[in-house]
Amino acid sequence: MLKGQSSKVFENAVNEFASLPGIGKKTAIRLVLHILKQNPKEIEQFGSAIIDLSSKIKHCKICHNISDEEICSICSDSSRDESIICVVENIQDIIAIENTQQFKGRYHVLGGILSPMEGIGPADLNIDSLEKRIRLNKTKELILALSPTMEGDTTNFFLYKKLNKLGIKLSIIARGIAFGDELEYTDEITLGRSILNRKPFDGKIF
Amino acid sequence: MLKGQSSKVFENAVNEFASLPGIGKKTAIRLVLHILKQNPKEIEQFGSAIIDLSSKIKHCKICHNISDEEICSICSDSSRDESIICVVENIQDIIAIENTQQFKGRYHVLGGILSPMEGIGPADLNIDSLEKRIRLNKTKELILALSPTMEGDTTNFFLYKKLNKLGIKLSIIARGIAFGDELEYTDEITLGRSILNRKPFDGKIF
Repeated sequence: MLKGQSSKVFENAVNEFASLPGIGKKTAIRLVLHILKQNPKEIEQFGSAIIDLSSKIKHCKICHNISDEEICSICSDSSRDESIICVVENIQDIIAIENTQQFKGRYHVLGGILSPMEGIGPADLNIDSLEKRIRLNKTKELILALSPTMEGDTTNFFLYKKLNKLGIKLSIIARGIAFGDELEYTDEITLGRSILNRKPFDGKIF
Repeated sequence: MLKGQSSKVFENAVNEFASLPGIGKKTAIRLVLHILKQNPKEIEQFGSAIIDLSSKIKHCKICHNISDEEICSICSDSSRDESIICVVENIQDIIAIENTQQFKGRYHVLGGILSPMEGIGPADLNIDSLEKRIRLNKTKELILALSPTMEGDTTNFFLYKKLNKLGIKLSIIARGIAFGDELEYTDEITLGRSILNRKPFDGKIF
């Protein structure tokens, strides 16, 4: 209960916002007061946009990306190369990769990564559908684009074991020091690996 | 347009959240994905709580606090002393003062403070209704509880000029060094005033 608050409607809205991650009571109050300043139409639009999330969002039957249709716009885009599949952990990663404008293939969303600590096993991820997809379609290359963490690498290794026998090209996104990083402050593992995995240099920065 | 986003419903919700103050695109995506993980009922509840803000919230006819009824729960609470009115800038300040549990009178929300820079004059604030309220009711004391800023003090002075002639007791919340502050880091104005306005000490911390 918000002390000094004479409106249950206000309080309900504040509590809903405060239930979101990273938003405390004070921020929630600030947000609701901001919304209150808008005109009724705008407020209804905001509310409807959230309600629509409950009823109108589907998951693409092919890649598990969120979608308004049965098949998402990336999977139904015939200009994109369907022989290359990029495996990502979640939807945010698709957005991040699309922002680079460097990939014109298709995606497959695992919906998480293997994590024995959190009890997430292979059956919890969209791995079976990935295997089926590779078997049925003319997939040539699978790019593993998971985060370079302990869990990410466990998942990479699991996928390698499971999918390598299918006779497709398996690749993994490059690791090394990031653009803008200073060597002095780069962690030892990354710096050590970047020397071991050095590439021939022909005057062009890759 | 969110690149790599195949769902307009998702995008709409993200844009609505990103329109809130202090919430960027990435945070908005995180929040919407969090909401998507909840069950449809919870999502609808969230949306409805926002829509209700557009239709069900009123402003109290007496003190201008937000309210579900014509008269807010503070103004209609007969156990609260109606002879003392505490003047605040906005609704957040009522919440802050109520949290202290030190005030059992009524409030009056100005809806802002005088600010020539932002073009906010006396006519934009709930000052006339405050004067009427004092004239009509048996108000004994008016507590000015505005922030101790340049604009706050301008407003305090304006209210003093306008309301002092009504023959009520006018008071202002105490200023000085805050609990937990270190003298060494207190600004000169505050520290200087706290010495000028020192109080007799009888062994009890006030």
